[in-house]
Amino acid sequence: MAEITIGLLHPGEMGSVVGACARAGGARVLWASEGRSAPSRARAAADGLEDAGALGALVARSAVILSVCPPHAAADVARAVAALRFSGIYVDANAIAPATARNVGAIVERAGATFVDGGIVGPPPRTRGTTRLYLSGREAKRAGALFAETPLETITLDGPPGAASALKMGYAAWTKCTAALIMSIRAMAGAEGVDEALLREWQRSQPDLPARSEAAVKSSARKAWRFVGEMEEMAATFAGAGLPDGVQRAAADIYRRLAGYKDAAAPPSVAEVARTLRS
Amino acid sequence: MAEITIGLLHPGEMGSVVGACARAGGARVLWASEGRSAPSRARAAADGLEDAGALGALVARSAVILSVCPPHAAADVARAVAALRFSGIYVDANAIAPATARNVGAIVERAGATFVDGGIVGPPPRTRGTTRLYLSGREAKRAGALFAETPLETITLDGPPGAASALKMGYAAWTKCTAALIMSIRAMAGAEGVDEALLREWQRSQPDLPARSEAAVKSSARKAWRFVGEMEEMAATFAGAGLPDGVQRAAADIYRRLAGYKDAAAPPSVAEVARTLRS
Repeated sequence: MAEITIGLLHPGEMGSVVGACARAGGARVLWASEGRSAPSRARAAADGLEDAGALGALVARSAVILSVCPPHAAADVARAVAALRFSGIYVDANAIAPATARNVGAIVERAGATFVDGGIVGPPPRTRGTTRLYLSGREAKRAGALFAETPLETITLDGPPGAASALKMGYAAWTKCTAALIMSIRAMAGAEGVDEALLREWQRSQPDLPARSEAAVKSSARKAWRFVGEMEEMAATFAGAGLPDGVQRAAADIYRRLAGYKDAAAPPSVAEVARTLRS
Repeated sequence: MAEITIGLLHPGEMGSVVGACARAGGARVLWASEGRSAPSRARAAADGLEDAGALGALVARSAVILSVCPPHAAADVARAVAALRFSGIYVDANAIAPATARNVGAIVERAGATFVDGGIVGPPPRTRGTTRLYLSGREAKRAGALFAETPLETITLDGPPGAASALKMGYAAWTKCTAALIMSIRAMAGAEGVDEALLREWQRSQPDLPARSEAAVKSSARKAWRFVGEMEEMAATFAGAGLPDGVQRAAADIYRRLAGYKDAAAPPSVAEVARTLRS
C-alpha cells in the first residue's frame, strides 16, 4: 500500500499526539507552521510531524486532512481549507455540536471534499486504551483505518455526520459540567463558612466527592479558557435537541471566570478558584 | 425531665418520619389536620402524631415547632405561626437558601420565638445512619437534643442561622443537579441516535453512569414537582454567594418539565422521560 499523506490542523496538545498516532499507522503527517506558535512548533517536532510551511502546500500534498483545534476555530479551519479547493477526505475531530459539524461538512463538501465527522473521548493518546476517536459518515471506516493498531482506538458509528460529535458532546456534558458544578459548590460552601462541614458530610455519604472536587480544580482550571467554546457548542447541542441548555451555558460561564489561569505555572488551589469564581 | 411538646408542620413524606423520631426521643408530637390532605392524615396516624386540630391549638400547646415542608411554603408556614405569637423554639428544617432561612428567622423572632436553622441530608430517617439533621443558631444544641438516640442523627454547626441551610444546599446541589443533568444527557443522546453508543462508552470509562442515569429517572421523576422550588432556593443560594446560578436554574427547568409525573403509579422509563424533556 502506498504511503498516505495526512495534513494535521493543528498540533495542539491533542492534535500533535493524534498526528503521532497517524504516523504510527504508517502515514506521512504534515503540519503548516505559518502563523503558528512556538509551542506548536516544539510539539510538532517532538511528534515527528513534517512542516509543509504554508497551508496551501499542506492542502496540495494531503489526501486526508484532520482538523483538531479549539471548538470555536473549527469552522474557520474548514473555510480556509475549502478556499484551497481541497478534494480529499476531511475529518473534523473537534468538540462541536452536531449542527456545527454538519455545517463544517457542508463547507468542505461544497469545495469537493468528502466529510467525516469525528469526536475524541479521552486524553491525548500516548498509550492504547485511554482514548477513542468516534467517527461517522460515509468514509468513516476509511478514516478509522488510518489509526489501525496505534494508541488511538477508532469506533465507527452507524449514524450520519453529526453522530460522532453528539457522542462526544454527551460524554463531555457529564465530565465537564460536573467539574464546573463541583468547583462552584466548594466556592459556595466556602463563602457560607460550611466548606469543612460539607467535606465531612461528603466523606460519609459521597466519599468520592472531596477528591473529585480537588481533581476538578487541578485538571480543569488551566484548561478553562478552551472549555468555554466547547460548553457553548454543548449548549447548542442540547438546544438543538429541544432540551434545556442552561447547565451547559452556566458551565461556560464558570469556565469563563477561570480563563485567566491559562498560563499559570501551577494549578490554583480550591480556595483560590473559589475566590476567582466569586469575583 | 418533663415531657416536651413539639408541633410538626407538616407530616409529609419527610416530616412525618421526623415527627416519629421526635416521639422516639421522648416528646409528645402534635400536628394540625385542618386543611391537610388524606395522605397527611394517614401518615400522621401511622407515625403516632397527635392531632391538635387547628394551627392555633398546636401553637398554643407547643414549646418547639418543627417546620418540614416544601421549600416554597417555608415562609408562609413561618408567617402563620408568627401571627399566632409563638414564643418557643422554631426549627426550620427545609431545603431553602441561607437568605430565605434568615428571613424565616426574622419573621418568627419578631413574634417572640427563638429561631434555629436546619437542613436534612438523607432519606426519611427510619433507621439510624441514613440521615442527618444539620442545625445552626443559638439554640441549635437544645433542638438537636430532642432527637438524641433516635434514627435521626443531629449535627450542630458552629455558624449562624443560614449555615445549616447552606450545607444542605451544597449537598443537594450535587445530587439533584447531576440527576437533572444525566437525564438530559440521555435525552440528547437518544434524540441524536447515539444513546447505545454513549452507554457503551460509559461502560468502559465511566462505569457507574449507566446505572446512575437509570436511578436518576427512577428516583427523581415522580418527586420532580417538589424539586423545582428547591432548585430555585439553590439558585438563590449560589447567586447570593456571588456565583453563577445557571446550573441550578437549569435543573429547576428540567424538573419543571417532569412535574407531571407527580401522581404516576410507577416511575417512567428513560425513553419516556427523554420524550417529556424534549416536549
